[in-house]
Amino acid sequence: MTRPTRASDPGGIVQRAPTLAHGVRLKIRTGEWKSHTSGLADRHVQGNVVILPLSEAGDFLRFCQRNPKACPVLAVSEPGAFDLPGLGADIDIRSDVPAYRVWYDGELAQECHDVTALWRDDFVTFVLGCSFSFEQALLDDGIALRHVEQGLNVAMFRTSIQTERAGMFHGPMVVTMRPMTPAHAIRAIQITSRFPGVHGAPVHIGDPGQIGIVDICKPDYGDPVNVLPGEIPVFWACGVTSQAALLQARPPVCITHAPGCMLVTDLLNHHLSTF
Amino acid sequence: MTRPTRASDPGGIVQRAPTLAHGVRLKIRTGEWKSHTSGLADRHVQGNVVILPLSEAGDFLRFCQRNPKACPVLAVSEPGAFDLPGLGADIDIRSDVPAYRVWYDGELAQECHDVTALWRDDFVTFVLGCSFSFEQALLDDGIALRHVEQGLNVAMFRTSIQTERAGMFHGPMVVTMRPMTPAHAIRAIQITSRFPGVHGAPVHIGDPGQIGIVDICKPDYGDPVNVLPGEIPVFWACGVTSQAALLQARPPVCITHAPGCMLVTDLLNHHLSTF
Repeated sequence: MTRPTRASDPGGIVQRAPTLAHGVRLKIRTGEWKSHTSGLADRHVQGNVVILPLSEAGDFLRFCQRNPKACPVLAVSEPGAFDLPGLGADIDIRSDVPAYRVWYDGELAQECHDVTALWRDDFVTFVLGCSFSFEQALLDDGIALRHVEQGLNVAMFRTSIQTERAGMFHGPMVVTMRPMTPAHAIRAIQITSRFPGVHGAPVHIGDPGQIGIVDICKPDYGDPVNVLPGEIPVFWACGVTSQAALLQARPPVCITHAPGCMLVTDLLNHHLSTF
Repeated sequence: MTRPTRASDPGGIVQRAPTLAHGVRLKIRTGEWKSHTSGLADRHVQGNVVILPLSEAGDFLRFCQRNPKACPVLAVSEPGAFDLPGLGADIDIRSDVPAYRVWYDGELAQECHDVTALWRDDFVTFVLGCSFSFEQALLDDGIALRHVEQGLNVAMFRTSIQTERAGMFHGPMVVTMRPMTPAHAIRAIQITSRFPGVHGAPVHIGDPGQIGIVDICKPDYGDPVNVLPGEIPVFWACGVTSQAALLQARPPVCITHAPGCMLVTDLLNHHLSTF
């Protein structure tokens, strides 16, 4: 059995704790777990999954590289390969995600729990960082997150910030919003600056109108949360940006994870901290 | 001649470029330069100076240690010693500051260019970090500073934030305010977080009322600067906090630098970056 390795992990830190995540993936692979991954394998990095044919994969990778805050790439597979050795021992991306969505020409065609039957030898898998990782770091630091406290999905907004186009992929940046006291906002900027692989520092603080958000109480996706008096809204780039760009580009075929049903990796969240 | 060293500088980086600062200090020592040090020995760390008898020095050091954002200690001398080997080659703190203020019982008694005649063998010198260092880092990063552009002193405000008391020293935190776009505010938080030795990250962003500032257009010290539409005020702890605490404590004797007339050290600003 191969063990996960990373170029940035010469000391092999990542190799120490794969068991918990590996066990979760086995339950998912065997169909024992088919739902949201939030809270599973606590402290392990979870990733957004996008699978595209090689013909569209080049554009998409350039799109991600040009928009790293919205689309932080944790791993890209070899064409046709369904393992991701950089992210975990014996990952099989065809079966290790609890629920997939299959899109043809930008239209949702089906949701399923295994895409082995659909696999093509020109498929390329992208795993993008997810805010679960930095939220854990914020919570660990004592910064309360209202949507977590209230058991809601984070509030997401389309903005007037345009992504950098790459080939067929373009569109507005989507952001998440978390209301905080100014002191927590400062600390959250410090903490998330250490995590460029999972959206990094915020893209905006304060006045929502400056990034084209008309009503902070009406998110485009997710659930509304209140911004209390004395709080400041803090906005991070969101992985939904890539999904919006994918839908707009209408590639002939595309497979993504279903919302909230992420790939659980062997990496620990704190391994993503750059300092 | 001894060369400056720091415990955190095992590679001896600091030892490479003392000549410029050393030359500036010689001009100051001989009386050739008796004025503001802003812009002298560009890129070298300049420090606030506080000299107190040993009997008050313990309280003051604890005050600084309890309020590190306002009073970041770069060096403390041995009692009676007038050199500061950690900050520069052959510093003589009795003569290497362009202008001193001498205070008795909290009242300004005189301003002079040399305190050799006043020296006591129980005097302890504190050198505190100054925002010149982080402002240089902000400017280097392309973040415009309005007060610098307009040739003004930075706007300073007394706040409702109370310092942590230590013995005779206490009082409100004084902050500097720099108006910025939200994007620059985020970047400035990242940059100044790397410089805990010169006030570090801001203590507040946004609503001035939350830290007891009634009118952002009327600073308590320094010059007013406009906060333009779309900008957010960013507040850093300020070294004037320690001066306010000193005046209030009324120690029998105290010597400080005159405003703007700092100690020029052999350290380079970027050496203060913690990462």
